[in-house]
Amino acid sequence: MKMNKLFLFQWLLLLIFTKTSLIFSKPHKIPRLTPLIQNIIQDHSNTFSSSTNDLPKEFETYYYKQTLDHFNYGPKSYSTFKQRYIINSKYWGGSNSSSPIFAYLGAESSIDGDPLGVGFLTDFAPQFKALLVYMEHRYYGESSPFKTMEEAVKDEDTRGYFNSAQAIADYAELLLHIKEKYSAKNSPIIVIGGSYGGMLASWFRMKYPHIALGALASSAPILYFDNITPQNGYYSVVSRDFKEASKSCYHTIRKSWAMIDKIASRKSGLSYLSRKFKTCSKLNDPFELKDYLDSMYSVAAQYNSPPSYPVTIVCGGIDGAPKGSHILDRIFAGIVAYRGNSSCYNMNPKPSETGLGWRWQTCSEMVMPIGRGEYDTMFFSAPFNLNNFITDCKKKYGVSPRPHWITTYYGGKDIKLILQRFASNIIFSNGLRDPYSSAGVLQDISHSLQAVHTRNGSHCLDILSKDSSDPEWLTMQRNTEVKIIEGWIAKYYADLKALQKGKMH
Amino acid sequence: MKMNKLFLFQWLLLLIFTKTSLIFSKPHKIPRLTPLIQNIIQDHSNTFSSSTNDLPKEFETYYYKQTLDHFNYGPKSYSTFKQRYIINSKYWGGSNSSSPIFAYLGAESSIDGDPLGVGFLTDFAPQFKALLVYMEHRYYGESSPFKTMEEAVKDEDTRGYFNSAQAIADYAELLLHIKEKYSAKNSPIIVIGGSYGGMLASWFRMKYPHIALGALASSAPILYFDNITPQNGYYSVVSRDFKEASKSCYHTIRKSWAMIDKIASRKSGLSYLSRKFKTCSKLNDPFELKDYLDSMYSVAAQYNSPPSYPVTIVCGGIDGAPKGSHILDRIFAGIVAYRGNSSCYNMNPKPSETGLGWRWQTCSEMVMPIGRGEYDTMFFSAPFNLNNFITDCKKKYGVSPRPHWITTYYGGKDIKLILQRFASNIIFSNGLRDPYSSAGVLQDISHSLQAVHTRNGSHCLDILSKDSSDPEWLTMQRNTEVKIIEGWIAKYYADLKALQKGKMH
Repeated sequence: MKMNKLFLFQWLLLLIFTKTSLIFSKPHKIPRLTPLIQNIIQDHSNTFSSSTNDLPKEFETYYYKQTLDHFNYGPKSYSTFKQRYIINSKYWGGSNSSSPIFAYLGAESSIDGDPLGVGFLTDFAPQFKALLVYMEHRYYGESSPFKTMEEAVKDEDTRGYFNSAQAIADYAELLLHIKEKYSAKNSPIIVIGGSYGGMLASWFRMKYPHIALGALASSAPILYFDNITPQNGYYSVVSRDFKEASKSCYHTIRKSWAMIDKIASRKSGLSYLSRKFKTCSKLNDPFELKDYLDSMYSVAAQYNSPPSYPVTIVCGGIDGAPKGSHILDRIFAGIVAYRGNSSCYNMNPKPSETGLGWRWQTCSEMVMPIGRGEYDTMFFSAPFNLNNFITDCKKKYGVSPRPHWITTYYGGKDIKLILQRFASNIIFSNGLRDPYSSAGVLQDISHSLQAVHTRNGSHCLDILSKDSSDPEWLTMQRNTEVKIIEGWIAKYYADLKALQKGKMH
Repeated sequence: MKMNKLFLFQWLLLLIFTKTSLIFSKPHKIPRLTPLIQNIIQDHSNTFSSSTNDLPKEFETYYYKQTLDHFNYGPKSYSTFKQRYIINSKYWGGSNSSSPIFAYLGAESSIDGDPLGVGFLTDFAPQFKALLVYMEHRYYGESSPFKTMEEAVKDEDTRGYFNSAQAIADYAELLLHIKEKYSAKNSPIIVIGGSYGGMLASWFRMKYPHIALGALASSAPILYFDNITPQNGYYSVVSRDFKEASKSCYHTIRKSWAMIDKIASRKSGLSYLSRKFKTCSKLNDPFELKDYLDSMYSVAAQYNSPPSYPVTIVCGGIDGAPKGSHILDRIFAGIVAYRGNSSCYNMNPKPSETGLGWRWQTCSEMVMPIGRGEYDTMFFSAPFNLNNFITDCKKKYGVSPRPHWITTYYGGKDIKLILQRFASNIIFSNGLRDPYSSAGVLQDISHSLQAVHTRNGSHCLDILSKDSSDPEWLTMQRNTEVKIIEGWIAKYYADLKALQKGKMH
């Protein structure tokens, strides 16, 4: 039963990945930042709740009348929209207790599953007596200012407000509101996020240090902008993961791309491939298949977490095919092992809300030049070409992306030089098996800007719920993070006390 | 000759002050942050140039194609406008020399006079081998995205982009452009600004530490928001300045308000006052006169600088009137002493570009609750009432100000607690005779967030040009600032060297 659900959700995950690539056609395929919730679904399918209605009653849902445009005082910006947030005060020390607030920053999906999925908050709330807050990112879930995501991103007048600076300004305004509502003036706030949400968490601490005391930025690839990280960082890690799991599997995959192209170039080759891979509709182009596989391997590597280790599952299929099997039969066996036995495999899925939203975000400001060259990974060559990317986005939305904006607004270049004497209280956590760790902060910047990573960890693993099956290194990583946060809070209380005693002014 | 010019420019200055008050009618008079250039004009009238055409040829004027809206990707935000900036490379160490860049952040006026007026940059450029950059604030001078200021602020569709977050984002984008243009990758940037520009400088270092290494924020009242500073801080300092200059002068002024009201309430009282004060047009209300005087005293205190000391000039007139003179004759003598002998005094001036722009800025986000109660200053009572203020702004612009936005975006509350472990490299300089110093940072926050103030200094005095008549305390203040900046740069070079040697990663 659990396995069936697992496969179902992995399937959903794949849809999102695949779709993005199809939109940007062959040369500019970019693996999107998978919403964290997908991972939760994958690993915790039995606890997942698809709507906040199913949440235990200690999670209370609220809506805040949020400012549409924080940086413009034109007529439209005075519009407001309903931003959803969820509060859990079960563990809280109470008003005027100075007990901390853990604030989860929603990312590129609804927050429906986050309260149960992002277990870090509930797992450690009792020992901190923390108030828990989960805030939904504008345009996703129930926090869309303009009807559906589809409508919002289609219209040039409505999608403009959909960006990261506006989103973290939402969080700033909302957190000040919550502090007032809960009489929590002296409660330090720790912001927590994963993946894109992890970027938001680190950026939030940098831009709003007066609101958040510190940030736990899990698997945040903040260095994947403006060519700070080599293009092929992502796929290099995917390839390494597969190589480490099984050399023969790695080599089979590496050889498969040319084989697919070769067959596709033959008369009736595409029909042959469609039958061989049980595609739900006939392949129009070999890229559809290659992209499906690319996404599958990427997802498996990104979420290559215990206890199931998806890369091992895929390679189990590939390596386990009968001796002498054709390369493509092995590849198909990998699909079946990972996705389950299905009557057909959909390589042309409809885009999800997340897919639609993230597509706009990457075409406006979140321009991450992820690509790869010839033979530098186990994949076929697919360099990121900025000019082509810009052309595609322009075709789609009529406007050009701003590929330098993220580094202009948030920085990222020479990060050690800049931040070692500025900023504090950020944990950059990563698992080195996560392809996005290639653009994460993996070394301490200063004593209070710390990199906490695990050799075998995967994407956002540390902020998911504790489990009795957790390996020791994962438990240790979480405990390290908790200790660092305790240190920030202890220092803050000492500062506060000194201030109140008049030692400081 | 010099005196005539002096009076002429003081007159211009007054126009701006007075106008703002008239707009908001009696109860909500707010002394605006006078543009720094007005001060320069006052003290350096012989070196002032009214247009950049008159600048020495080492100052070169350029225009940057600037993004209209950095935080929205709607159709209009892709518009651009021409932002003016001026470069002086006479003293610069050259491309790839790592010599620093001094960047002056324009405030609420044209930058025409800044290159010669803000002498701190040219005075200290040789010893730093600094490249000098002067950037104009959007909507002022030649950097208006929409024709004239008058048209821009009248139209709800065009004035929305006119705010501080957009302005500092302009500076971020432009400075990165300049670094590239001048091959100055490793050149540290020190941002410098005064008054509102000083706020922008400190905020810029906080928001864009990856672009500016440090900030000299001169006379920046960053704590005059959201009631962090008591309402009457400004007028308390004005009153103290007058009391220190002359107790009798102070008492004369203090008593004058009731006298004006008493006479105005009589039949033909306003005609009498109009004649007595030689107003260019008949007074409609005693407030016009009181507001004119209020502004004159405030300006005199704000710019109470050597060698002329305007407060002493005003009080010289008041105290120097023939023995036994009527209170109002003494007050008029104060006007004549300060403003010069004139055929009439204009108490209903037309608003300047600065007045029009700043009015919008205060009615949108720069809400500074400056007021005073009954008998707590030498002035008549004029409490700041936020609700009335909002009503007035709504009437004028159709939209409500956002009085909490500045503290939400930039912070300010509990500044010591927040910033002692975050941020670095900001000098908050103040002169304690400047009424705005009441909302300045007057104590060190940390070893790298330093308050440098002088007991006798006035508004933005430290960043004006050196003069042989400068008192020793002013020279010392500037030298202290220079030493601090040298320290930042030395540390930066050491960090850079260590990084390049591979000691850091």
